[in-house]
Amino acid sequence: MRPCRAIGFDADDTLWHNENIFERVHERYRALLARYHDAGTVDRTLFATEMRNLELYGYGVKGFTLSAIETAIALTDGRIGAEEIQILLQQGREMLAHPVELLDGVAETLAALAGTHRLLIITKGDLRDQERKLAKSGLAAHFSHIEILSEKDEAAYATVLRRHAIAPAEFLMVGNSLKSDILPVLALGGAAAHVPYPLTWGHERVAEAPAAPGRFFPLASIRDLPALLRP
Amino acid sequence: MRPCRAIGFDADDTLWHNENIFERVHERYRALLARYHDAGTVDRTLFATEMRNLELYGYGVKGFTLSAIETAIALTDGRIGAEEIQILLQQGREMLAHPVELLDGVAETLAALAGTHRLLIITKGDLRDQERKLAKSGLAAHFSHIEILSEKDEAAYATVLRRHAIAPAEFLMVGNSLKSDILPVLALGGAAAHVPYPLTWGHERVAEAPAAPGRFFPLASIRDLPALLRP
Repeated sequence: MRPCRAIGFDADDTLWHNENIFERVHERYRALLARYHDAGTVDRTLFATEMRNLELYGYGVKGFTLSAIETAIALTDGRIGAEEIQILLQQGREMLAHPVELLDGVAETLAALAGTHRLLIITKGDLRDQERKLAKSGLAAHFSHIEILSEKDEAAYATVLRRHAIAPAEFLMVGNSLKSDILPVLALGGAAAHVPYPLTWGHERVAEAPAAPGRFFPLASIRDLPALLRP
Repeated sequence: MRPCRAIGFDADDTLWHNENIFERVHERYRALLARYHDAGTVDRTLFATEMRNLELYGYGVKGFTLSAIETAIALTDGRIGAEEIQILLQQGREMLAHPVELLDGVAETLAALAGTHRLLIITKGDLRDQERKLAKSGLAAHFSHIEILSEKDEAAYATVLRRHAIAPAEFLMVGNSLKSDILPVLALGGAAAHVPYPLTWGHERVAEAPAAPGRFFPLASIRDLPALLRP
């Protein structure tokens, strides 16, 4: 690929596990509501509630927990008990307090790239939660800047790159979400490396792989980055 | 006062009303739980829950709503009904969707100062909620930078000033909270103007007014800023 000066990294499901925590919570949520509805109905209704609330709540565990309580009340016609709502609250706190588990290869790859490139984190979600995860990850020292955004679209990336005086042509974004990490950066003229995570939240799914020859790089692992960047 | 190049503004209760919205919500909360407990017990228990959850949830409406649901379950020994929890969820959404009401004098004062000084917003709380309020306020164009932090302590201000290459000696912070807007900036060697709001959340109350002659300025209104800044 063409030389790049700055590399942006998504955080959740790119540097550390996240969607697997949500997946386990979804399983317990289905079990909690199993005597009222089948798993498909529970999943669809919760997702619809999350999408309806996304504009107000934004991304993150607190908004998810509020949507899960709202959905549980709706799906049970108000028969859900206070103890069950307490379980949902407790589950939300456990998600926030969850240990950070780095993905395979992340620590070594970042340590190597930090010596040769300017590294940024560009993530979305809840401010305090993302800061806490970064602190727990032990990775903070590798990054020159941390950008926690409420949305990762073309305009948001343009603002971040302008703020740090990075030209799109010298920027590579690395992430697991085609929608949030890859497509908006390609649209700006930057390069993007897609490292898929085994699970993808419905909201982040897109139908088509991008076509941007010489600027889009599907990778099997973050470990493949140094070879991609070698001149 | 000594000349200053950059002015930081707190947002909630400095530029627009906020605590009055929480105050109305507290009144409705007391009424909701009145058949279980007196107002003092409700207030104290909710505040204790908020403080216990603050490290995990951070500031903002979503964390407040989760703490309010948790407290309602605890204070009623689980007898609270799903309809009442639905009311709390609905109340949280209304707080997030609430119109932004500027404080008296804010629009004119910022318009005047934007011509002579570099203006920043330095606020804490929920990322999306603060961005939405700023967009609704119509004030965004006056500010060169918006900093939404998870905490406003000395270290956080030091990071922000370093990031924008502002020396503490040429910085004035304006806000309603002695704890979050005034004391940490004075400790760094900056100047601070305190414009009190009629209501102060318990967590932001401090016992003592700061002593920093020539750097601390209690003002009755944001309208008094231009005179303070006049050389």
